Amino acid sequence: MDFQHSHSDSARTSATHPPEKHRIAEDKLDYSNEPNTRPLPNYIVHCHTPFNAEPQLPLLVNSGQITPADVFFKRNHGPIPDIALDDHKVFIGVQQNPQYYFNAESPSVEWRQLTMHDFMTKWPKATITASLQCAGNRRDGLAAVKEVKGVIWGAGTTSTAVWAGPRLCDVLKDVAGVSSDMLHEMIRDFHVSFEADDHVHEDVCYGSSIPLRKAMDPAGDVILAYEMNGKPLSRDHGFPLRVIVPGFIGARSVKYLQKILIQPQESMSFFQRHDYKILPPWVNHDNVDQSWDTAASLAEMNIQCVICTPTEKQVLASSKPVTIKGYAIAGGGRAVYRVEISMDGGQTWAPVDKMEQHPDKKSGMYWAWALWEKTVPRMNKSTEIIARAYDSSGNVQPEFPIWNYRGVMNNAWSRVHTLPALQHHM
Amino acid sequence: MDFQHSHSDSARTSATHPPEKHRIAEDKLDYSNEPNTRPLPNYIVHCHTPFNAEPQLPLLVNSGQITPADVFFKRNHGPIPDIALDDHKVFIGVQQNPQYYFNAESPSVEWRQLTMHDFMTKWPKATITASLQCAGNRRDGLAAVKEVKGVIWGAGTTSTAVWAGPRLCDVLKDVAGVSSDMLHEMIRDFHVSFEADDHVHEDVCYGSSIPLRKAMDPAGDVILAYEMNGKPLSRDHGFPLRVIVPGFIGARSVKYLQKILIQPQESMSFFQRHDYKILPPWVNHDNVDQSWDTAASLAEMNIQCVICTPTEKQVLASSKPVTIKGYAIAGGGRAVYRVEISMDGGQTWAPVDKMEQHPDKKSGMYWAWALWEKTVPRMNKSTEIIARAYDSSGNVQPEFPIWNYRGVMNNAWSRVHTLPALQHHM
Repeated sequence: MDFQHSHSDSARTSATHPPEKHRIAEDKLDYSNEPNTRPLPNYIVHCHTPFNAEPQLPLLVNSGQITPADVFFKRNHGPIPDIALDDHKVFIGVQQNPQYYFNAESPSVEWRQLTMHDFMTKWPKATITASLQCAGNRRDGLAAVKEVKGVIWGAGTTSTAVWAGPRLCDVLKDVAGVSSDMLHEMIRDFHVSFEADDHVHEDVCYGSSIPLRKAMDPAGDVILAYEMNGKPLSRDHGFPLRVIVPGFIGARSVKYLQKILIQPQESMSFFQRHDYKILPPWVNHDNVDQSWDTAASLAEMNIQCVICTPTEKQVLASSKPVTIKGYAIAGGGRAVYRVEISMDGGQTWAPVDKMEQHPDKKSGMYWAWALWEKTVPRMNKSTEIIARAYDSSGNVQPEFPIWNYRGVMNNAWSRVHTLPALQHHM
Repeated sequence: MDFQHSHSDSARTSATHPPEKHRIAEDKLDYSNEPNTRPLPNYIVHCHTPFNAEPQLPLLVNSGQITPADVFFKRNHGPIPDIALDDHKVFIGVQQNPQYYFNAESPSVEWRQLTMHDFMTKWPKATITASLQCAGNRRDGLAAVKEVKGVIWGAGTTSTAVWAGPRLCDVLKDVAGVSSDMLHEMIRDFHVSFEADDHVHEDVCYGSSIPLRKAMDPAGDVILAYEMNGKPLSRDHGFPLRVIVPGFIGARSVKYLQKILIQPQESMSFFQRHDYKILPPWVNHDNVDQSWDTAASLAEMNIQCVICTPTEKQVLASSKPVTIKGYAIAGGGRAVYRVEISMDGGQTWAPVDKMEQHPDKKSGMYWAWALWEKTVPRMNKSTEIIARAYDSSGNVQPEFPIWNYRGVMNNAWSRVHTLPALQHHM
């Protein structure tokens, strides 16, 4: 098939190639220039180099529908790049020939080069409220079953922000010449791969891809965001430009975006091919190498629901009713259909009192989480509170965690155990 | 917004209105002209008027990836219409004004009229292999928990066929003038409603709708089918024309299609508004009337997996290995990611030996079921076999059925109990 480039002026005048990249050994990665404005009290920091931190759960639901940037989880695979806005270039290309599968720098790609000014001025600015969730959210529940590989996240790597920037579909139409007729021919095999302007120890840089179908879907709402909650992105969240892929696992929303390539296969990146997959339970450290290619790359999230307050082992005054609060989210823009609470180990369930979830104003898709709450009578003994959610397709969370080597997509019933306050007997 | 009609010749020359319809009381419905060529031995017939029958489960998996028309489940809400191919007209319109929400016959709709010849000649014929599954599949598992409303289906109302006819998106572009620019504006609120040329007792006719987004999605693969498995549709399966909505519950694939209306709300039909919803478990016969509007209409299916052989209470020779066979399907074109079998009540799981699922050749979406099998050692005592499946988003089936008043979307683990052959002791 032939691409008719109807690219923008700036793109046309600066055909060139993205910079070559080399892999840096883990012990040579330079962490000397990390952002120093991190309000650490909000966070449980799992690792400083790379910086991986999740907010305290009560803070997450008490911040409201939109998570402030200094509460939003922070997930990194290497040092955080320090990019100058005016110098930053993003390269966009189309790779049509599958013979170059293993060489993204092949001469068959005609690259276009865009500046941040281009992204800020050439296309309408779309504003999308979307939750991001790390595929490793609640990995601690799987680690409790058996050892897993990865940061042992709790349930705090889900957060919601208002993102703004041009729609990826508009950019690809103009710069890469993707027309709707072509789309019909490309929809099965083509993907849009993203690369970050960073260094990580697993690969030459962070990379990932999404199906072209998702990128071009008028209700897919994929944007190239330069703003988060009305302000320029912070370094922690991808300055100066990141992809936002609503409904997909967070790993696809690539930060520090430097390269966009339309190609007839998924990204070859470590993070697309050898990570973020649900490996079967019989795959472990010994046989993982030969198993990656047999498992599909994760894209849409599964149905998820988490109790954020009270917290695990929280002591509750026995004289007062308790308000249980949490979040729920489904993948692919599906709505959270219902959240239920059980106080008797899952024998009986009652609906939450209140649930708030807003669809996107333009597409009607449910990209942002539902926040919910329920007030229950006082508890004067140790109690297990359980929550589970359904999505609009009738998918529901499983009762128990299902172990997998990478510890991803744990969406078992959420359980919190509370303790009674010490009782003074007369 | 304004629709620029670029309708076909035949449509332009015959602007008119669909025939008026009146509701017929249940005891006045005429069942004297039902098809008489039903190979009943293949079926468990739950009801003759209307005719509702599902195949024997072993027949379903032993027929291969494509279910013959005389094995495919048959689901009706009234007498089966006897329509003459040459006389059949299909009316297509656009209703822009929400003030006519409750009057689909409003004068604001300019109707186009198409013949079967139009559908067979004016657009390319698309061929889609898709499974249909009744939302009430496995309702027997929910009826076992508590009384439900509806035909007490087993697990046989899932079948797969090769459907052929024009793409709905092509028809709507040409006849209703839906352009891709308009689509961006309409994508949140607009739906495509379908009405059948039939009579049912619940409403004036069978009706349903799907989001316009699904109808126009280049990878949505919604077609207006006049062929099933290479032959004209039979009366049982919707002759002369039916909608096929891959990935959605079967109720949306309206048979005997007579009317297509693009409108700024879901269909007002009983079958969209007061049926095919997962009501919460606290809704029952007494409070159902005020509950319908609080629940969302079902669209995409959830992850499903069923053991078809051996069958429940089947006596197995204790000297031979047993081959377990079944099907699995996910909603929305998601792939079946994995099927697992447990022989110890769900404590441990092993993968199936073989699983076959084919994506659509053009869109790459997984509309057709996966057939799977696993051979296990001989069983010389009563045994419970359990199967469960995961979809590509990491959704998994729940352990136990979750009751709801309409008995829909039961996707609990599939369980079959086998019995040992009588042992002769010396």
